[in-house]
Amino acid sequence: MSDIGTMDPISARGASVSGSRKIYLSGNLYPLLRIPFREISLHTAPGSGVNSILVSDTSGPSMELDGQTNVDHSRAARRAWVERRDDTLVYQGAIQDAVFLEKSFAKFPDLAKNVCSPRKSKSNAVTQMYYARKGQITEEMEYVAIRENARLADEENRYALNNSKRSQSESRMLEITPEFVRQQVALGVAIIPANINHVELEPTIIGRNFSVKVNANIGNSAVSSSLEEELDKLLWATKWGADTVMDLSTGEDIHATREILIRNSAVPIGTVPLYQALEKVGGIAEDLTWDIFAETLIEQAEQGVDYFTIHAGVRIAHIPLAMDRVTGIVSRGGSIMAKWCLTHHKENFLYTHFEDMCEIMKAYDVSFSLGDGLRPGSVADANDRAQFAELETLGELTKLAWSHDVQVMVEGPGHVPLNLIKENVDLQTEICSGAPFYTLGPLVTDISPGYDHISSAIGAAMIAWHGTAMLCYVTPKEHLGLPDRDDVKQGVIAYKIAAHAADIAKGLPGARDRDDALSKARFDFRWQDQFNLSLDPDTAREFHDETLPAEAAKDASFCSMCGPKFCSMNISHDLAKLI
Amino acid sequence: MSDIGTMDPISARGASVSGSRKIYLSGNLYPLLRIPFREISLHTAPGSGVNSILVSDTSGPSMELDGQTNVDHSRAARRAWVERRDDTLVYQGAIQDAVFLEKSFAKFPDLAKNVCSPRKSKSNAVTQMYYARKGQITEEMEYVAIRENARLADEENRYALNNSKRSQSESRMLEITPEFVRQQVALGVAIIPANINHVELEPTIIGRNFSVKVNANIGNSAVSSSLEEELDKLLWATKWGADTVMDLSTGEDIHATREILIRNSAVPIGTVPLYQALEKVGGIAEDLTWDIFAETLIEQAEQGVDYFTIHAGVRIAHIPLAMDRVTGIVSRGGSIMAKWCLTHHKENFLYTHFEDMCEIMKAYDVSFSLGDGLRPGSVADANDRAQFAELETLGELTKLAWSHDVQVMVEGPGHVPLNLIKENVDLQTEICSGAPFYTLGPLVTDISPGYDHISSAIGAAMIAWHGTAMLCYVTPKEHLGLPDRDDVKQGVIAYKIAAHAADIAKGLPGARDRDDALSKARFDFRWQDQFNLSLDPDTAREFHDETLPAEAAKDASFCSMCGPKFCSMNISHDLAKLI
Repeated sequence: MSDIGTMDPISARGASVSGSRKIYLSGNLYPLLRIPFREISLHTAPGSGVNSILVSDTSGPSMELDGQTNVDHSRAARRAWVERRDDTLVYQGAIQDAVFLEKSFAKFPDLAKNVCSPRKSKSNAVTQMYYARKGQITEEMEYVAIRENARLADEENRYALNNSKRSQSESRMLEITPEFVRQQVALGVAIIPANINHVELEPTIIGRNFSVKVNANIGNSAVSSSLEEELDKLLWATKWGADTVMDLSTGEDIHATREILIRNSAVPIGTVPLYQALEKVGGIAEDLTWDIFAETLIEQAEQGVDYFTIHAGVRIAHIPLAMDRVTGIVSRGGSIMAKWCLTHHKENFLYTHFEDMCEIMKAYDVSFSLGDGLRPGSVADANDRAQFAELETLGELTKLAWSHDVQVMVEGPGHVPLNLIKENVDLQTEICSGAPFYTLGPLVTDISPGYDHISSAIGAAMIAWHGTAMLCYVTPKEHLGLPDRDDVKQGVIAYKIAAHAADIAKGLPGARDRDDALSKARFDFRWQDQFNLSLDPDTAREFHDETLPAEAAKDASFCSMCGPKFCSMNISHDLAKLI
Repeated sequence: MSDIGTMDPISARGASVSGSRKIYLSGNLYPLLRIPFREISLHTAPGSGVNSILVSDTSGPSMELDGQTNVDHSRAARRAWVERRDDTLVYQGAIQDAVFLEKSFAKFPDLAKNVCSPRKSKSNAVTQMYYARKGQITEEMEYVAIRENARLADEENRYALNNSKRSQSESRMLEITPEFVRQQVALGVAIIPANINHVELEPTIIGRNFSVKVNANIGNSAVSSSLEEELDKLLWATKWGADTVMDLSTGEDIHATREILIRNSAVPIGTVPLYQALEKVGGIAEDLTWDIFAETLIEQAEQGVDYFTIHAGVRIAHIPLAMDRVTGIVSRGGSIMAKWCLTHHKENFLYTHFEDMCEIMKAYDVSFSLGDGLRPGSVADANDRAQFAELETLGELTKLAWSHDVQVMVEGPGHVPLNLIKENVDLQTEICSGAPFYTLGPLVTDISPGYDHISSAIGAAMIAWHGTAMLCYVTPKEHLGLPDRDDVKQGVIAYKIAAHAADIAKGLPGARDRDDALSKARFDFRWQDQFNLSLDPDTAREFHDETLPAEAAKDASFCSMCGPKFCSMNISHDLAKLI
């Protein structure tokens, strides 16, 4: 679990989002916590209100301190949190086996050299849910509570920076307290995906009462991409604000790719272990066995994967329901398990071994992301019997996982017309007892190849407003090919828009502060502030400068859209004098 | 009004959307009508169902017949429709005055040469509403009825092409009949913007019971762009599916720019006459007079503008309501009229002269687009007293226009959080008695400069689902500069997605056919069909080919996203054999 950070050809590194600086807030219960934010300083007149805005920052240590890479605060930090709890032990893991190492890192000996011993529980579950139910507020819980409050931390009520303590009155201004986090995690309505072996993690919370999160899928396929490109995508996705990243690699080098990603990731990493298990049996779905699958779970848990997508809801009885569809089964995992079930005429082994999985996952705190293997792949197939039959099973499995203190979120579609979106959230919430919903889009039409990030951001904003806790992004390449670096950025930005729009609509306290600050900057013609408060300052600045590149135009009370005489905001300022 | 089509340096011309061919359907009541569609032929097996899909085509004659430019069918056609009604006369218009011509076309003598006599009503209103209320089904009404039915015109119930008549049984299969159109127009719940002097027009209908339309704003500003660029944007916007185009030009050459646009536009052209009136008084808002404004209306009506945005709802009493806002007044027209009112301490002359405007507009059939001069320019200002006070006035003016048989649509915001969107439509529908709603987005967050086409497409899809009839696009350049050619395309595509998503959600018959055809093509790995059915086949093809350029990959049962072994659709096909 040591730092494998020697590769550094990556253009994203060190390039923090422009127009802001990274700062850290400290904990109260745990004063050594250092929670990262980006501070955007504004060019407002002194005493005129808000002079800076804090926004959450998921870019991790490699981005910090305006470009100094690979500073190692949080990595060391989280190792200490886990050790302090004194309920885990270091052991000789499968991933340290010499043969295994050679196989996994054949092309990357540097990576193999650095692998060190994993940790697992001594006896009790070491999950955040377990601690929460015992009444214990962990470091992770306070960390995410402070992280969620970025938007409340303006200059009047900002927590003291670094090691100084906050006063009681300041504490009371928090909307989201560590205790509230604990309660939500104990109830299962929020999760903190945080494998004890992912010591590089800066924890985040996923639940409907918190800000909506965005996941970015990366990972190579047999046809395309390299390990370096995938690491680049991870850093690039988190620079732009991805809250979690899924490594969906298939093909070769699957273990090595995951290793470099986890070791360099400040955000939770999710995987679909089935993909690797299938590689182990040469791609023959019917040759999959529980033993191979379980071995893969342990291998990945030892590495530090924070959540597993598990397609345990694809029961054999559900499969015929999907046969008359326009697009059949469009989940890779779903189709693989369906093939296994039909070939063997047996119930899905992920379903029959579900409690065995819980036993493994609770020893590392890997969270379930219950896969929707029968999600609709076209608007024609939305909200059909196959989809909802599987959802019933996911509800049953949610409760089973909770009985083992294992954290759970539940995946959702996919392709859904606007008028059928709300039903998805409402049913999932009811059937899965409020476990966080994690949806892929959904796309609201099928005719947008090349622009599916837009089609799906529309559905994503709406489903998040109605209660979805995390949105899995869709890139412009969806349905067409593996996303590259630029696609990843386009997908993340589109989904940050959707997630933020939902935060505003849900009325999360302070969610609108950044919007208001930007709009005030716009009205005051503070162009630099307007750019810096944007989700993507570089693009905003570049677009502005296309037609008005002169530096003086950054103070001009107009832009090329309307020109000086026709600027409504300019005229608005005159009105105040007339009224 | 003659054809000024000699300029042809434009790259968009002749380049029809790839993978389809333009065809025409004929009328029934009016057999000479030729209504344009794009036919997308599919590579399905014979007898396997749908073999082609028709989609509406707004690109106009310059795009037709796979690249032959400037064929002149519809232009000649509509002149005959107007003449046949025998209620108009040709007269010596203001725009033929020699001094006026020289001033308007100083730089473009070719344009001036071609200007010919305008036409106006002899006595009665010559509006579609007038005819509709008399029980008369016009050519325009049958034209739009057939146009709306593209999605119903598959091979089983397609209208006979060109001049052969449809049978009675085929007629009955129409969901949208000419008589239904007439009723909707008579009620005012739909409009057909169709100035009698815009003989180049291919009419379209705007109303909540029809497919959602998309408007593209173009036009230069004092700072940027040329006449040629604006013509290019018009052709480019309509190639990608814009249903109407607004020429928002300010600055120099405003008359000439409009002339070249109208003469080359198959879609309705809207303007904000106030911009030109303001140019006439040297940009000094307080120097505006009703006489100058009225003269401008007539000038533009003679040219063929199909709808005018008129900011008559900004009453003097409303202005103080907007003073405490985060972003004041963000409508150019709204701010200009507010300045006029406050300077003179008088009621808005557009309000006091509203019936005078009706008299002018009914003589040419120019529709009102009642401007929302007090629309919110930030999510903070959404649904406030200023906005809704103006809406009350717009409701009053709607009824006044209807009393003159003048067609009306009503403009809406702007910036609105997701949770406040539905209220906008519901209130507008009630207050304006069902007159079509025409909204700008709305943007659902303010923090997306550079990506406001996405932020606003989210709001647009939702507001259209709830009943908005036309969406005014927002481009990636919004708030930053004047959109260029690529921005126009990005804006149009994002809004075609939003509009189509709403059509599906509203349950318009056949709205999903194209989605289903595309999804079936996807499931069958008919890659070419998948591209051709996309809103933008070029981009879809290009994205696919980035990683799998070989021609053979177009028949491959996988793409680079998952590779061959992990393709769920591929596995799905195997399942059918196992079950």
